[in-house]
Amino acid sequence: LSAVLVTGGSGFIGVPVLRELARREHVVHALHCRSAPVDISGVRWHRVDLAAPAELDAIVAELRPQELIHLAWYVKHGRFWDAPENVPWVERSLHLMRAFARAGGRRAVMLGTCAEYDWSAADAPLSERSSPLGPATLYGVAKDALRRLASKYAEQVGFEFAWGRLFFLYGPNEAPGRLVASVASSLLRGEPAETSSGTQRRDFLHVDDVARAVGALLDSSVQGPVNIASGEDQKLADVVECIAQTVGRPELLRIGALADRPGEPPRLVGDTRRLREEVEFRPAKDLHTGIAETVGWWRDKLSDSK
Amino acid sequence: LSAVLVTGGSGFIGVPVLRELARREHVVHALHCRSAPVDISGVRWHRVDLAAPAELDAIVAELRPQELIHLAWYVKHGRFWDAPENVPWVERSLHLMRAFARAGGRRAVMLGTCAEYDWSAADAPLSERSSPLGPATLYGVAKDALRRLASKYAEQVGFEFAWGRLFFLYGPNEAPGRLVASVASSLLRGEPAETSSGTQRRDFLHVDDVARAVGALLDSSVQGPVNIASGEDQKLADVVECIAQTVGRPELLRIGALADRPGEPPRLVGDTRRLREEVEFRPAKDLHTGIAETVGWWRDKLSDSK
Repeated sequence: LSAVLVTGGSGFIGVPVLRELARREHVVHALHCRSAPVDISGVRWHRVDLAAPAELDAIVAELRPQELIHLAWYVKHGRFWDAPENVPWVERSLHLMRAFARAGGRRAVMLGTCAEYDWSAADAPLSERSSPLGPATLYGVAKDALRRLASKYAEQVGFEFAWGRLFFLYGPNEAPGRLVASVASSLLRGEPAETSSGTQRRDFLHVDDVARAVGALLDSSVQGPVNIASGEDQKLADVVECIAQTVGRPELLRIGALADRPGEPPRLVGDTRRLREEVEFRPAKDLHTGIAETVGWWRDKLSDSK
Repeated sequence: LSAVLVTGGSGFIGVPVLRELARREHVVHALHCRSAPVDISGVRWHRVDLAAPAELDAIVAELRPQELIHLAWYVKHGRFWDAPENVPWVERSLHLMRAFARAGGRRAVMLGTCAEYDWSAADAPLSERSSPLGPATLYGVAKDALRRLASKYAEQVGFEFAWGRLFFLYGPNEAPGRLVASVASSLLRGEPAETSSGTQRRDFLHVDDVARAVGALLDSSVQGPVNIASGEDQKLADVVECIAQTVGRPELLRIGALADRPGEPPRLVGDTRRLREEVEFRPAKDLHTGIAETVGWWRDKLSDSK
């Protein structure tokens, strides 16, 4: 059985990814630093600061993982789009990739973003093959630059490289300021939830499906960019109304109370042909099921904290 | 007077750049590591290993340069196009750029390459504004990725960023294996010089003109990519015949003795409008003058070493 090294394993996506890898019977080595490790059967944790190249080199040389899933990044809500921290994360990712290659690594999966695409042109489903790239944020530029370099380096040095391009996510444990989390928790506390017009259409995937897709991508031989998305666009107003119905407090929803951000694209949806046909992945949770589960998770969490 | 920090100052391009900066009366701090520093009036040298982030951070914090010229890279002839070393040079460049920004840096100039352009489409002069990018080598991909990231970071953090895109170079001190250097030194030693068909057209600029262009670019307020080129395409056969005439041994030239590399583009020439009109730079040495001078330099060097 081949060993997988996972960075960012204690994060929002990381924990479900570790569970998925354990379910797929991988030998999993997860790195953590500031966050506490989460106890998952079959997962061994190692405390390593990715900002300390020597620590990283040592653990990679010791474990000699054949596979790598690199999830760690700077993701502070409201800040990450244009934070300078995106740049050192490119440096760390490149350093990690080189250490992995030196130690004989065979296949690496890293995460990208739908913000690599040119959103000014976005309307049809965004396709890995035919949609123009053109990131407008430092986050998008950093991920785009990392993908370009890592693909070429992998080709040159001789390991497989796949790039899971995430769209919009939701699910348990999401950062409290993000859309689904903030609307669900406000309504559950009996507080009003204010949103913009909600006419924007976005492609949402439950974090457990994201994790299943990452596991399937690792176990496939697909290389290059693959959209990790549902392929369905949802009006944001419908998403928040679904939350409000589930909570049972539709009267607290204030759709249109906030202004739309200027320049926000009307529609962002992933073309999921590669994910479906090559990775052979299909989402297990539709939006209603996923929202119901997420609201339930917030309900438990809020009642625990009382 | 503002202080300029220069990396790669002891290299083929670096030494003429330092002389040009001294001529322009900048306060120059040059970093060197393995190479010995070259004595140039007005240039202060500091021994720093760019692969050691802590050393780099310390010197940048101490000097607090307002300007940066980053020339250092992996350039081993015959190896650099696809060498894995391109990747750590991206990491170091990003780290340097961040240290420079933290220390209050105001303007940075870095070097790119005509290999950032899509050579399969190249025929008309390559333009910063309209020619498609599409690097085919790891070197080209690394420079392209660095440029994308550095431009966006500079915009976000608030310093000026210019990117000098080099075409083909020649001049004194060039690596012995490169075209002009190897033909000149073979013929001067009385040995035959073998070349390919020589029908390829390339844009050559003398390294002293490259250095003058880099100095002019630093002292301008131009941002983004600027081709550093002559704007004239020369048939390689004409270039080597010019060398043979200058040496006085045309009978030793074996044009067509080597096969052309498959897929080599027939013509690579830079559109120099930005360089001429915005940077207000014009080359001082035409090809004949530059070749004569370069042959003279090799003649002195070879007679010194006897």
